[in-house]
Amino acid sequence: MTAPLESVERLDADDPLRHFRTDFALRDGLIYLDGNSLGAMPKAALARMDTALRREWSEGLITSWLDADWVNAPRRVGDKIARLIGANAGEVIAADSTSVNIFKALTAALSLRPGRKVLLTETTNFPTDHYMMQGIAGFAGGTIESCAVPPEAVLDRLDDDVAVLLLTQVHYKTGRIHDMADITRRAHDVGALVIWDLSHSTGAIEVDLNAANADFAVGCGYKFLNGGPGAPAYIFAAERHHGARPVLSGWFGHARPFAFDEDYTAADGIERFLCGTPPVLGLTALECGVDIMLRADMRDIRRKSVALSALFIEQMESRCGEFGFALISPRDSDVRGSQVAFAHPEGYAIMQALKARGVIGDFRAPDVMRFGLTPLYQRYSDVTDTVEHLRQICDHREWDRAEYRIPAAVT
Amino acid sequence: MTAPLESVERLDADDPLRHFRTDFALRDGLIYLDGNSLGAMPKAALARMDTALRREWSEGLITSWLDADWVNAPRRVGDKIARLIGANAGEVIAADSTSVNIFKALTAALSLRPGRKVLLTETTNFPTDHYMMQGIAGFAGGTIESCAVPPEAVLDRLDDDVAVLLLTQVHYKTGRIHDMADITRRAHDVGALVIWDLSHSTGAIEVDLNAANADFAVGCGYKFLNGGPGAPAYIFAAERHHGARPVLSGWFGHARPFAFDEDYTAADGIERFLCGTPPVLGLTALECGVDIMLRADMRDIRRKSVALSALFIEQMESRCGEFGFALISPRDSDVRGSQVAFAHPEGYAIMQALKARGVIGDFRAPDVMRFGLTPLYQRYSDVTDTVEHLRQICDHREWDRAEYRIPAAVT
Repeated sequence: MTAPLESVERLDADDPLRHFRTDFALRDGLIYLDGNSLGAMPKAALARMDTALRREWSEGLITSWLDADWVNAPRRVGDKIARLIGANAGEVIAADSTSVNIFKALTAALSLRPGRKVLLTETTNFPTDHYMMQGIAGFAGGTIESCAVPPEAVLDRLDDDVAVLLLTQVHYKTGRIHDMADITRRAHDVGALVIWDLSHSTGAIEVDLNAANADFAVGCGYKFLNGGPGAPAYIFAAERHHGARPVLSGWFGHARPFAFDEDYTAADGIERFLCGTPPVLGLTALECGVDIMLRADMRDIRRKSVALSALFIEQMESRCGEFGFALISPRDSDVRGSQVAFAHPEGYAIMQALKARGVIGDFRAPDVMRFGLTPLYQRYSDVTDTVEHLRQICDHREWDRAEYRIPAAVT
Repeated sequence: MTAPLESVERLDADDPLRHFRTDFALRDGLIYLDGNSLGAMPKAALARMDTALRREWSEGLITSWLDADWVNAPRRVGDKIARLIGANAGEVIAADSTSVNIFKALTAALSLRPGRKVLLTETTNFPTDHYMMQGIAGFAGGTIESCAVPPEAVLDRLDDDVAVLLLTQVHYKTGRIHDMADITRRAHDVGALVIWDLSHSTGAIEVDLNAANADFAVGCGYKFLNGGPGAPAYIFAAERHHGARPVLSGWFGHARPFAFDEDYTAADGIERFLCGTPPVLGLTALECGVDIMLRADMRDIRRKSVALSALFIEQMESRCGEFGFALISPRDSDVRGSQVAFAHPEGYAIMQALKARGVIGDFRAPDVMRFGLTPLYQRYSDVTDTVEHLRQICDHREWDRAEYRIPAAVT
């Protein structure tokens, strides 16, 4: 794709998603390219949270668990997220953090594959995926092994020792997309289960879990779903796996939480993947973000995402080619998620200089500049303006300032 | 204690905590006796949440992790809660649910007592405490045993097989207070560790974890701390146990979360008890409730709590003595927490009739009516008015209506 500058206005004018930008509260002049780290705030969240505070908490108090349907919020929000990822109602539930949900999915998968000892992932997966695996292996004291192999070796490592393969579908740094259906099939061929971490997928690319015959998935509420800082995450379990046993058997996962039995009896459905009392305020904000996403057509989102990232790459190469940016995202848009990443030795400092100019992207150690593309509230002009800022920053070595040096905490 | 009705006005007028009621948003005419299930909303939460939404999330976006200090919210709120429970700064951290924190504490304790196989509790403990123990035992497949014995048999069951004893200090139904220092000493005598569930203690009674030489504790943010529905919970780990290994090793518990290492290295301090990205909106609301509590003198709170519950019991016996209410809370206020519970065969229906009259308490199966006493926003007149409502309800058999019958879901 090529997009001469003069056509950018036309692209924005013709954008079928352009009206969605008004659903978000974004300050004038800001170019925000970090929605894959923390999504923008839906304007509706202000009124909805005010209702949650004034009417539900303050006035309704304890009666709001039923009267304001708090008790079903994890399932209600989960059912909505299900529609974005090719899952059925009753297969997704929202609560807890992504890390905690990874733990539930890993232990649930282990319960379905007794005797198998390997938890498998790829070396460059997002750290918390590794860490949760390592925590389980450490606790199991030799009976479970946490195994990470290079991305290209994953399929070869699959054998009948592998209980579960945990992969992030869209890579957090590069944006590379895994072929969910193919990898799931290959894992199933050796009897292994697969957990898909959809943190950078949901709301960003088209996902069809059931078409891929997926087993489990988890994902993040505060990125492309625009659910707010530290929003609850969600977990998907295919209906055929609703007999699995996640170790985190808290009272909200019980078949009859309010019977106060002393013995745990897991709920029949997806509710068994709940644990403690759900985070009502967080779920309330998350639902606002999910509701906007449901009004858009995921195919339009994906089309615009591809167009934005292609424009970004084309502009960077034509206008910033001499400054040493190395594209580390796939060039092929079929396997590129909703972000573009470039490595640059001065990546950290350049990102600080961009921020000073009102452009926010983010940085991932050691040298990756990551730009998230969020079709609901970004314009094509945001991309071309960003590249122009980068050109000027590099042209004038604007990044070469003491206050932009990378702090030790980040290295 | 006796409190003739004519003196109730005097009690309220002389109450050193009376001004705190104006810090909470409570609708006129409501008598709220369920603050031990969900605390009232601090008025300050409205403005604080508005700032979190408009300024921090919407305007600050990703930069608020540092600029609004989101990244330290779990520790900052934890340090404040520490002051309410006799812990030091750096020994408490707020995030996740109580159930998830119980899991962290149990597995951390197990890491300090390798070779011991018993997780011990009392049969009548709050269900989720049982369930989390059972989840671990199920996963460990015979190497760990979840053991519940009657309350009076707990101390006798302590032996060198017990890794950890998990008890709720203030019983969720009866309000009975365990002697934390004595039980902890008895457990330590056999080399066992103790986890104190403080869900009904924190903000309700004076707690001094370090004076009791406590090992671990967990507690709830949405009861007496008034942190909002599904508020984050907290975990205490005595500094000497900061080498323990909770199994939930998510990226926020890493020594350098933003270095994106593939191998988990636990943070040195209490941060290792974090797991995933913390729930910022929930922590923001929780902090408002904790801040109010810190302005009160815990001794005043306890004194008033004892006076309220003593008045409740005295009034129930003198005015409702003939209606068959059986006190199941301890009569001795030294071992009674901030609630009063009565068993009654028609407890559920009576509670519904009370609600219809604007008095909210709660019901715990099979027959327990539980009244929470929250000295920051309750008046002595609330107690005497409640007893008068109960007298009238029983006098006229107002509870005997079809719509007040107990639904199957609760039995």
